[in-house]
Amino acid sequence: MFKKVLIANRGEIAVRIIRACREMGILTVAVYSEIDKEALHTQLADEAICIGPATAKDSYLNIANILSACVLSGADAIHPGFGFLSENAKFAKMCKECNIKFIGPDYESIELMGDKARAREIMKKANVPVVPGYEGTIKDENHALSIAKEIGYPIMIKAAAGGGGKGIRIARSDEEFLKGYKTAKAESKACFGDDRLYIEKFIEKPRHIEFQVLADEFGNVVHLGERECSLQRKNQKVLEEAPSNILTEEIRSEMGEIAKRAAEAVNYKNAGTIEFLFDKDNNFYFMEMNTRIQVEHPITEMITGVDLVKEQLKIASGEKLALKQEDIKICGHAIECRINAEDPENDFRPCPGEVTELCVPGGMGVRVDSAIYCGYNIPYFYDSMVAKLITFGKSREEAIVKMKRALGEFAVGGVKTNIDFQFSILEMQEFLDGDYDTSFLAEKMVKNNA
Amino acid sequence: MFKKVLIANRGEIAVRIIRACREMGILTVAVYSEIDKEALHTQLADEAICIGPATAKDSYLNIANILSACVLSGADAIHPGFGFLSENAKFAKMCKECNIKFIGPDYESIELMGDKARAREIMKKANVPVVPGYEGTIKDENHALSIAKEIGYPIMIKAAAGGGGKGIRIARSDEEFLKGYKTAKAESKACFGDDRLYIEKFIEKPRHIEFQVLADEFGNVVHLGERECSLQRKNQKVLEEAPSNILTEEIRSEMGEIAKRAAEAVNYKNAGTIEFLFDKDNNFYFMEMNTRIQVEHPITEMITGVDLVKEQLKIASGEKLALKQEDIKICGHAIECRINAEDPENDFRPCPGEVTELCVPGGMGVRVDSAIYCGYNIPYFYDSMVAKLITFGKSREEAIVKMKRALGEFAVGGVKTNIDFQFSILEMQEFLDGDYDTSFLAEKMVKNNA
Repeated sequence: MFKKVLIANRGEIAVRIIRACREMGILTVAVYSEIDKEALHTQLADEAICIGPATAKDSYLNIANILSACVLSGADAIHPGFGFLSENAKFAKMCKECNIKFIGPDYESIELMGDKARAREIMKKANVPVVPGYEGTIKDENHALSIAKEIGYPIMIKAAAGGGGKGIRIARSDEEFLKGYKTAKAESKACFGDDRLYIEKFIEKPRHIEFQVLADEFGNVVHLGERECSLQRKNQKVLEEAPSNILTEEIRSEMGEIAKRAAEAVNYKNAGTIEFLFDKDNNFYFMEMNTRIQVEHPITEMITGVDLVKEQLKIASGEKLALKQEDIKICGHAIECRINAEDPENDFRPCPGEVTELCVPGGMGVRVDSAIYCGYNIPYFYDSMVAKLITFGKSREEAIVKMKRALGEFAVGGVKTNIDFQFSILEMQEFLDGDYDTSFLAEKMVKNNA
Repeated sequence: MFKKVLIANRGEIAVRIIRACREMGILTVAVYSEIDKEALHTQLADEAICIGPATAKDSYLNIANILSACVLSGADAIHPGFGFLSENAKFAKMCKECNIKFIGPDYESIELMGDKARAREIMKKANVPVVPGYEGTIKDENHALSIAKEIGYPIMIKAAAGGGGKGIRIARSDEEFLKGYKTAKAESKACFGDDRLYIEKFIEKPRHIEFQVLADEFGNVVHLGERECSLQRKNQKVLEEAPSNILTEEIRSEMGEIAKRAAEAVNYKNAGTIEFLFDKDNNFYFMEMNTRIQVEHPITEMITGVDLVKEQLKIASGEKLALKQEDIKICGHAIECRINAEDPENDFRPCPGEVTELCVPGGMGVRVDSAIYCGYNIPYFYDSMVAKLITFGKSREEAIVKMKRALGEFAVGGVKTNIDFQFSILEMQEFLDGDYDTSFLAEKMVKNNA
């Protein structure tokens, strides 16, 4: 096992990783930007090294500085968390070249899955169902338009190098398509430095259902069931739950096997997530694979009892998976609410600033993965998610009731948060009925504002 | 089910009960003393009623004011928590007379179990093993001395009306006995308004192992396994764990059945705890029954998945126990550390004051039942316990590792706490080996100070 792990991230996920390491007796090195000197991850780690100014590109995306910090501290591995460099194949490759273990898959898998078009090709070959779409290279705008017409509207335009909802446009006509194509191209260029786009059939009102997999370096792969992530706002997940209330045991097992096949197809190692679109007729399509730990991983941990970050560390250090598929039992129901410092009344604009009051919920069945404390100044440079509130119950009803109770106790002063907004979701009849898809929240909010 | 419950308590247990009620859709009424206006339980409840000045006897022990608050608020039941009026038979009786449901056993059971001598008699009749001792009424000092000589030293002198370690003395000689008898009598009078004493054989270096039972109003009784509570300081529990590492499945089952018998013998209803002394030769003796929810109840909740406070509410409202003995499975291991505002360097003197900084641990397997928040002023009028930190792991080792991790994260500024002291216990080899008894902590601390 590793002796010392550097965590190339910040916020609650950095804290999460420190926790796993500490419980395993592994020393931790935090890296932090100048503005994160007082951040919780900086304080909790055994060592902390400043890697540059607040702007992400100068610190948390600064590969040279992070690798230097790693060498300097003598850490033998890097955990990239999510976001930042976690799906940067170049970074994973450079880690390898520096003889530092990247806690994640091989860079080749990241590269492969990061390229949506190539990933799709491989999935098709592996008999993983994909959304009808165009596989070739798009020559220009006219070519793109002809592809769109051939697939038939509605059409989705995605950044080939994308992720996190950036560079995505939906078009229902030639006109919308041409407009969307241009803006997606520009956004893709700006966000990922790569303006290649990908065109596919737009699945109307799908569910977003994803499967967690773990794969070791000896070819063993297991899945840990699904997460229902359809509650989204602008392609960003808001509230996740596991299991999904619409999967039968049969479909779960079928999708799980397909998820494993998807991982095997790219010789995947470590923790990964296969995202599917699930339509009203129980058809499902491979959407993408996230080659990292995900924000919503705790809900899988709650219903399986498996600590996914510890599994990541074990796999990366060369251990064989101790879990067999038949050992993985799904028990109870878990919900995660992302707690963001943002203003729901003001188009969810991020609300950085000092946390002047804080009361964190507790008690039975409540888990808090947080990066804030009273007196902490939330910087405006990074993502607005500051905590995750997770509840576990024997049933979905119990998990919901617990979440409402816990949200009701959660008091944050000094900055605005989405706590009340999350509470309002839990009171929506459609949510209570488990009757929602990825467009639900947006439609509901339009209706409420009308 | 009740519509509205008044919680005749404060601190974390009041918060705990509010949580259970809220999750069950029951409205809550907090009562608070003048100094507890900003306390967490006062803030979290649906309603809050001031019941008098800070001194407990004028507020949390003020039966008239509490009953008035109950009538005034229209609550249909009172949950007494632990301490204060929770084992006051008179209070339970008055509730009944006012047509308010007391969430606990009938006052007759409280009365019976509250009288250690009578309880002992009944237990003997029910074939529950008891410590050799004198059953009759002690006439005077000389009579007491002759009893002590007959049983043989070491001898324990206990307040007949006692609990919580108050009014207890150990004697190993006539001289010690006479001195202990006098002071125990005085202490008993002062604490309980009742100076009757009880004399029994002192079991050397026993374990304190207690069994949780639940009994409904239809004669159904189940036990939920044991809690190992041997880590004590001055007869006050410090750290508890479940299950106990020394009970075999066979002994657990035997003790559990005896615990059920003990409850049945007093026609017990609701949640209760049978405390046993467990000696080195695997003999065990009924010590006392606590006729209320206990501080350490969460560890049982963690290993059984049963919410004990919800069960209390259900039983009190007349529901049948849905749990059968065979449904109760003990899974994993849980530890609770009591977090006290006290100064371990200064004979554990209580340290009330303002909490100026607070970072509460979180993450997988960590439960916090707390009554403090940043800016909260811990009053000096009440018990110094301000929070309970509970960890759950698949094994004892995992629960310990999680507790160390969580204690390491727990930061409280402004007041002194026993967090580091608790951490030090988790590093003691004897604790790690599970090799400790009720005298362990005291001996260890003498040794360390020598």
